[in-house]
Amino acid sequence: MKVKDGSIVKEMRAVWYENSEVRMIDQRRLPYELVVVSFSDHEKVAEAIRNMTIRGAPSIGAAAAYGMCLAALNKKDIEKAAATIKSARPTANDLFYAADHMLTELKNNADPVKAADDYAQMMVDKCTLIGRYGAEMLKRISKNGKVIVMTHCNAGALATVDVGTALAPMRAAHNDGMNLFVYVSETRPRLQGMQLTSWELLQEDIQHSIIADGASGHFMRKGVDAVIVGADRIAANGDFANKIGTYDKAVLAKELKIPFYVAAPVSTFDPNTENGKMIEIEDRAEEEVTMIGAVRIAPNGSRALNPSFDMTPARYVTGFITERGILDPKDIGKIRNTEE
Amino acid sequence: MKVKDGSIVKEMRAVWYENSEVRMIDQRRLPYELVVVSFSDHEKVAEAIRNMTIRGAPSIGAAAAYGMCLAALNKKDIEKAAATIKSARPTANDLFYAADHMLTELKNNADPVKAADDYAQMMVDKCTLIGRYGAEMLKRISKNGKVIVMTHCNAGALATVDVGTALAPMRAAHNDGMNLFVYVSETRPRLQGMQLTSWELLQEDIQHSIIADGASGHFMRKGVDAVIVGADRIAANGDFANKIGTYDKAVLAKELKIPFYVAAPVSTFDPNTENGKMIEIEDRAEEEVTMIGAVRIAPNGSRALNPSFDMTPARYVTGFITERGILDPKDIGKIRNTEE
Repeated sequence: MKVKDGSIVKEMRAVWYENSEVRMIDQRRLPYELVVVSFSDHEKVAEAIRNMTIRGAPSIGAAAAYGMCLAALNKKDIEKAAATIKSARPTANDLFYAADHMLTELKNNADPVKAADDYAQMMVDKCTLIGRYGAEMLKRISKNGKVIVMTHCNAGALATVDVGTALAPMRAAHNDGMNLFVYVSETRPRLQGMQLTSWELLQEDIQHSIIADGASGHFMRKGVDAVIVGADRIAANGDFANKIGTYDKAVLAKELKIPFYVAAPVSTFDPNTENGKMIEIEDRAEEEVTMIGAVRIAPNGSRALNPSFDMTPARYVTGFITERGILDPKDIGKIRNTEE
Repeated sequence: MKVKDGSIVKEMRAVWYENSEVRMIDQRRLPYELVVVSFSDHEKVAEAIRNMTIRGAPSIGAAAAYGMCLAALNKKDIEKAAATIKSARPTANDLFYAADHMLTELKNNADPVKAADDYAQMMVDKCTLIGRYGAEMLKRISKNGKVIVMTHCNAGALATVDVGTALAPMRAAHNDGMNLFVYVSETRPRLQGMQLTSWELLQEDIQHSIIADGASGHFMRKGVDAVIVGADRIAANGDFANKIGTYDKAVLAKELKIPFYVAAPVSTFDPNTENGKMIEIEDRAEEEVTMIGAVRIAPNGSRALNPSFDMTPARYVTGFITERGILDPKDIGKIRNTEE
């Protein structure tokens, strides 16, 4: 991804291996400052996943792969390391997938660094393909070369090592010279839309406006050509979990007949999860809602509920933009079966 | 309304006249501290309406009435005073209604203080009736005496001089001994739900949880018996304007077959506004979205859009809870015509 540093534009990834360390952009410091943190053992990487230094399912997957790489280089018990890493977050399927994939590779005596780098690169290659398929779709639905998209949370390069899932079609369309405008819903409580997605769009000079989450319907009715979101886990029937607020947008899009796309690599599909009801929804600390930094904004005595994700049934999804093309929700089971 | 001050519980209104001054609770300081501010001329009252020291359509109406009262007591040009007051906010019908009502009363030589007090009391009496009709409705839909309600923004006593519109049925149901639980959506960008509604519910010991606006659909699907919101203006066909985020909840409620009620006095109905498309939507400063207090939370360079209201078509409304009973959307035109 492009990162502007004054007048200099650098290329950077969300997480990488360098000089015996795993390095990552500390996403909690964005958009205020670009800070790169380094870890030399897998426990610290697991902690970084837990405390959301790094977030987004595919970036979490890559961080898990690099964490497993450190465990192997440090001659730790890789089975225990995989268990530690997998326990860091409960919802992201990529976390489990990456840890298990590395476990298999390491048991087969793969080079730890190459195996983790390959895993990360595979993700970036998938995102690039998602971008191509998504941009073609945007081109089809554009009016006079202009297209208005709404997204939620951050399914950008920060979330996927590089390029992004939901943001990949927007990057590709922008690079193709389309006239693109993006509504970024701020994504309370943690504001990943306002703080991360709009930061990424700024780096690429893509036109956008931040809106309150509750303004989604208002702006969809004014005119949105497509909603594109990411996914943390997709069940075998096409139901999917994503950041809280996704379901609301899906229902609004259906009501207003706006195409609703989920951009995700096939690794996000979990054939072992039959449907959305089986997806565990992570509840996070209520202080994410009731406090901004160290300042309490709710009345003393009021409680909050803070589910991190919601589940959107497959029937609301127009298509899944994957590295294999745009899939119909009812084809999910089939596609997965041909891979396993 | 009840206001807890340590172990003391006081009765207080959102706005009143006392010792040649208009006094009001400074709602921008809640929930942190209870501050009463006083004004001795109508320009300052208009400014308090503009800067949201007082907010909520009926409280704005009462503040406008008390502002007109000050203008008359201060021997100002009451036509000019009405124009000044009416220019303070563009959307709230009660503001125009109250200023015009006082203009007529004052031209007929009414006592300024009594006329304004009567206007405020009339609002409180209407809210009390809205509470009764609404509580009966909640009783009908309750399961074993238990009822779960979702509300948005603040349509409470702070917004309506006393008692509230959307909160009136909840106060009445709670006072009747029903087992009530309220989901309060925080209402970005200004957080009136988190900061005002939950503050009011705390004063009354009504069980509630604050949720992010984007969690509305998630919790509706888990089980909500009714959504109750207020309204800033209701068109002749039943379309209505209310705080941004209301339309999203209306669409979700329809999708999930949850009754969706709008609680408002008949004065909120505007027979001169044919339908929702004719309602002007106020755009407020983008800094309400991009900043928290003096701290910028968005990336430097990103812009925001900040419509204060959205418009919900009448077809999403199960009923309007008014001081005349619960009205069907298609009866709005009729009801209003019998009054004019």
